[in-house]
Amino acid sequence: MKEVVAGVDIGGTNTVSGLVDRDGNVLAVDDLKTTEYPDIKDFISNLAASVNRMLSKDKSLKLLGIGIGAPNANYYRGTIELAPNLTWKGIIPFASLLKEKINVPVVMTNDANAAAMGEMIFGAAKGMKNFIVLTLGTGLGSGIVINGEMVYGHTGFAGELGHSIVVPGGRQCGCGQRGCLETYASATGLVKTVLYLLSDRREESILREIAPSELTSKRIAEAAAERDKLALEAMDLTAEKLASGIVNAVVFSSPEAIFLFGGLAKAGEMLFEPVRKYVDLKIMPIFRGTVKILPSGIPENNAAVLGSAALIWNRESR
Amino acid sequence: MKEVVAGVDIGGTNTVSGLVDRDGNVLAVDDLKTTEYPDIKDFISNLAASVNRMLSKDKSLKLLGIGIGAPNANYYRGTIELAPNLTWKGIIPFASLLKEKINVPVVMTNDANAAAMGEMIFGAAKGMKNFIVLTLGTGLGSGIVINGEMVYGHTGFAGELGHSIVVPGGRQCGCGQRGCLETYASATGLVKTVLYLLSDRREESILREIAPSELTSKRIAEAAAERDKLALEAMDLTAEKLASGIVNAVVFSSPEAIFLFGGLAKAGEMLFEPVRKYVDLKIMPIFRGTVKILPSGIPENNAAVLGSAALIWNRESR
Repeated sequence: MKEVVAGVDIGGTNTVSGLVDRDGNVLAVDDLKTTEYPDIKDFISNLAASVNRMLSKDKSLKLLGIGIGAPNANYYRGTIELAPNLTWKGIIPFASLLKEKINVPVVMTNDANAAAMGEMIFGAAKGMKNFIVLTLGTGLGSGIVINGEMVYGHTGFAGELGHSIVVPGGRQCGCGQRGCLETYASATGLVKTVLYLLSDRREESILREIAPSELTSKRIAEAAAERDKLALEAMDLTAEKLASGIVNAVVFSSPEAIFLFGGLAKAGEMLFEPVRKYVDLKIMPIFRGTVKILPSGIPENNAAVLGSAALIWNRESR
Repeated sequence: MKEVVAGVDIGGTNTVSGLVDRDGNVLAVDDLKTTEYPDIKDFISNLAASVNRMLSKDKSLKLLGIGIGAPNANYYRGTIELAPNLTWKGIIPFASLLKEKINVPVVMTNDANAAAMGEMIFGAAKGMKNFIVLTLGTGLGSGIVINGEMVYGHTGFAGELGHSIVVPGGRQCGCGQRGCLETYASATGLVKTVLYLLSDRREESILREIAPSELTSKRIAEAAAERDKLALEAMDLTAEKLASGIVNAVVFSSPEAIFLFGGLAKAGEMLFEPVRKYVDLKIMPIFRGTVKILPSGIPENNAAVLGSAALIWNRESR
């Protein structure tokens, strides 16, 4: 028998599943449209069918468990709680519903924690005991590993670095606070920064030719790569705020590395170089030079499935 | 034989040692003037003599180990490194020097980490797996416990929440940064806030009768207790900044409790009440009501010795 784990990434629009072996090979993938199943029981049935369909293709496979990354997933309770971007409202006992269909261990957490677990088991954090993954997408998610263990905290919701405050009284955040890190250091934050600069500065920029609703971090990074001054300034300001968040995380847990992942991280050295510069400038001397700022070591097309599967492989490897 | 542990608290002026049993009873205490031994070897010899002197009083005692709290102590290396307030310069291999004199396990960390360990083994954090101790003295120290383990980080210097930045571009800090939490939320920070208010406000205050060099957090807390408006405002501003630091720590590790300890914490409800108010106001909804803000449960006169001894008792209890 060949042991495999199912990794499931539940997003607001799509849910992707895959079978992953101990070495991180993705043996099969399958997907569902999350939005097509407003009734959670329908979704669970179809997700179980999807996993069974993948397993049925090779009779030698033995399923060890199912790891799930989902918005507002609670590790301790196996629930999805009050997720604003999902159609299922309230507190969903997801893990127990799924176990009724497929009786194997089910482990859930949010997507950023799953990304961190993927990095530790299959990626560039192999062997590291203390590191943080920041996912820079629409928001800023974080997965924190300390002493070789994921940090879930007393509530199961720890690791919300996107909502650490870097600018008191700053930009409005969806969470109700102001000045949260994710309002600056995310794909959305970068767009906001460009809009602000367009309002404030007089200089020419190719970004003035793009309707605000069409503006993306990708377009801005491309403009920066073409040395558009305003785009470069926006990248620099974004990097500076991200560095502030990183510096506050470093005085807390003194990690060996911070991994940057997700849409904004695709800007590459255009982002990493100024982030490293500002971290070095802002950090207290005792920590200077102690923390690496690195790209993820996980292949991006399978990152979410690998991360979710890693939740189970991490337990198996103990 | 009765098993005991020696707890040693090394300060810039005084070093206090004690023998502590498994239940947290302090069976003996002894002290040294740290400043009298500029040569580290003399200090080590006298510290060893001090421990042996305490042990010699009861032949039934068996020493299991020595726990040490000291400024800039590194847990991994057993060193004291570049401590600005100690006479020993450079990197001192303290633990190995002491083991040459008394051959038992020696565990070292900084005083705030020792305080957190004391809280977990002997104090109000018994049974808690996720909590933070903030020591509000001249500076702001922090000891962080996650998943039941002290957070030392990759470098051994983790837990410097006093140097998380709460006011970008704010007050000068001794660490070289600006706007660090400890420049506001410490006994020294409270005095600074009063001096600022005295410069800015026109209202009468009994604090105007005290020379700035004589101003202490104790005097200010007394004035606040007497409803001096300016003192009350200073307490409120201090509580607000402390709450900012706490809120950023909560999104990181979601602790069950934050313990406030040290000189400024003696202000009691005068401080705790506004801190709780601002934490509740600033914290993101998912964490609201999940974290208790509590006073230390360790008797203050023996806190440092108990904390240091707890470093060893924590190992013994595994």
